[in-house]
Amino acid sequence: MSKTLQSFFPWIKTPFIISAPMLGASTSRLAVNVSRAGGLGFVAGGTDPASLNKMLNESKQHPFEMFDYPYTNLLQRRGALPIGVGFQLFNSNLELLAPIIASHKPAAVWLFAPKVEEDLRSWATQIREATDGLTRICVQVGSVAEAERSLALAELDFLVLQGSDAGGHGRRQSASIISLVPEVKDRLAVTQKAGVPVLAAGGIADARGVAAALALGADGVVMGTRFLASEEAGIPEGWKRQLVNTGDGGVTTRRSTLCDRLKENHDWPAWYNGRTIRNKGHDDEEGGMGDEENVRLYKEESKRGDSAWGAHGRMVTYSGTGVGLLHSVEPVESIMEKTIRESRHMLEMSYRQAIARL
Amino acid sequence: MSKTLQSFFPWIKTPFIISAPMLGASTSRLAVNVSRAGGLGFVAGGTDPASLNKMLNESKQHPFEMFDYPYTNLLQRRGALPIGVGFQLFNSNLELLAPIIASHKPAAVWLFAPKVEEDLRSWATQIREATDGLTRICVQVGSVAEAERSLALAELDFLVLQGSDAGGHGRRQSASIISLVPEVKDRLAVTQKAGVPVLAAGGIADARGVAAALALGADGVVMGTRFLASEEAGIPEGWKRQLVNTGDGGVTTRRSTLCDRLKENHDWPAWYNGRTIRNKGHDDEEGGMGDEENVRLYKEESKRGDSAWGAHGRMVTYSGTGVGLLHSVEPVESIMEKTIRESRHMLEMSYRQAIARL
Repeated sequence: MSKTLQSFFPWIKTPFIISAPMLGASTSRLAVNVSRAGGLGFVAGGTDPASLNKMLNESKQHPFEMFDYPYTNLLQRRGALPIGVGFQLFNSNLELLAPIIASHKPAAVWLFAPKVEEDLRSWATQIREATDGLTRICVQVGSVAEAERSLALAELDFLVLQGSDAGGHGRRQSASIISLVPEVKDRLAVTQKAGVPVLAAGGIADARGVAAALALGADGVVMGTRFLASEEAGIPEGWKRQLVNTGDGGVTTRRSTLCDRLKENHDWPAWYNGRTIRNKGHDDEEGGMGDEENVRLYKEESKRGDSAWGAHGRMVTYSGTGVGLLHSVEPVESIMEKTIRESRHMLEMSYRQAIARL
Repeated sequence: MSKTLQSFFPWIKTPFIISAPMLGASTSRLAVNVSRAGGLGFVAGGTDPASLNKMLNESKQHPFEMFDYPYTNLLQRRGALPIGVGFQLFNSNLELLAPIIASHKPAAVWLFAPKVEEDLRSWATQIREATDGLTRICVQVGSVAEAERSLALAELDFLVLQGSDAGGHGRRQSASIISLVPEVKDRLAVTQKAGVPVLAAGGIADARGVAAALALGADGVVMGTRFLASEEAGIPEGWKRQLVNTGDGGVTTRRSTLCDRLKENHDWPAWYNGRTIRNKGHDDEEGGMGDEENVRLYKEESKRGDSAWGAHGRMVTYSGTGVGLLHSVEPVESIMEKTIRESRHMLEMSYRQAIARL
């Protein structure tokens, strides 16, 4: 992990783990518990300032005592929150949301999916001004070119590099982090931006993915799906159960725009789609069913509660390809502790393996 | 690396690197030089026994002296070749090819793409018998379920796990190695097959990918695209130049069946497609051009030689997403030396990073 990240977030441990901002799922309790365990938890900002304000107020009811030192000295006495907030730019209003950021001063803001990339500049500038530089700003990108363009457009504190394995929304066309992370690192070095920390996202669901990300040159990782299957995640039990019961994510999940069409969310820029667990909605679409009927059946099924989830259900079940690495719903604290401990062990073992026969 | 792999191939170094069997590209000189540098080089067997026989005879003209010890003791004095041969099963005739394997005794045979998976059994059995067990047998798979089915069907010595980033042919639906490798390892442990070594393939083009694969739990790696850009690769200079000049492989390469349709190779089982660098053929297809006209233009362009390659050309340019990590055409010996050395360093550095802040 770079010294830069330590200076941004003085409480963090290594390997550095971020929980992704996932709308509805990333509760303030989830985010706080990730930060308390030495990571950086994110909530999803959504589009409604009042809801965001409420969620950030709630986050202050969770105990932050572990941040007494050294966090207090550096950020907390200036009133900052040791969690981050993520925004989907294409449908969010900066003017309405910036005052909430100014009021709560989250440790970080995560920008994703601008309608036009130039919007990154105004978001980064206004958020930085709103908290007098206390809030660190990152952008989630899915290609080498997008990383370079984003850094040229806006002053950014770190980058999230999202590979093709990620659950939820991402670029339709992308590599996995296996090639994305090292190539971006090389480009940053060439363009005098070698100091910009990069976090790897997509397909990482346990210690081995974390260890691999560090070996690729990342300064830390983002996990999403792993935290969906946490006690703190604000999603239906049916969804959590399906995550625990699903394996072989490369085959059982799909990247598609079906998730947005079923939810009648037609505003996503055309270069994104979302990875979900494949279910009846996909089967019917491949069998020739049109959106109108598929949406109707989706809405009908939504009323069934937890039993609507599953491979034979129709719910939109965001998940990355790492879903087969989850075997139970656990508290965030134990996910964090185990992942950090085992990833250190994995790197020690693989270094020994690498020098076994010279 | 597992002790098992050391016993199969006594000359190998760690990290263990395999060069993929790539039809036309993987010359006997390429394969021999990979093995000489401490890896295991593969040639592609193709479908014609006479050509395979010729290629394996040629391989014996390259110096094998580095294998004097301990290789000689274990395999060479029984007349085996320290390289492997890969077969695409769906269009290959086992009865015609097995005698060539019996005669040359390659150190390994790599099985891929059977028309029906049950064919793995006859291939594995007959090849094992043909060389009295001297030839080790692996299967390339692209999902957790396929790995388990293959191991249940045939006696296999190791597995190649191919992720979605791979160049050339692979499963249309797959995860990258980030989640595929650890999940397969977990399944092998549960099914009492923990001793079966696994090699990671797809998107690995330099030391960082190798280090990551080990951190994921792999016993070694396969590189394809990196060896296409080697002096020894038997492909046109235009193709090599395009590999060196292409970056951001997640965006600039595509998985598609266009490669097979252009080459009028309609025999590939439906669950495979191929990753190539995107070019004019893809543009025209997306613009609505039918196969007949696209094939005609492809054949026309094929006559232009090296200038037919490039993003504005039409040649079938197999490449993985790691293409942006290649910056020059190099001899195999230097690719191997650098990759092995730097991957050890990368693992040492990332272990130190992981324990920096406890």
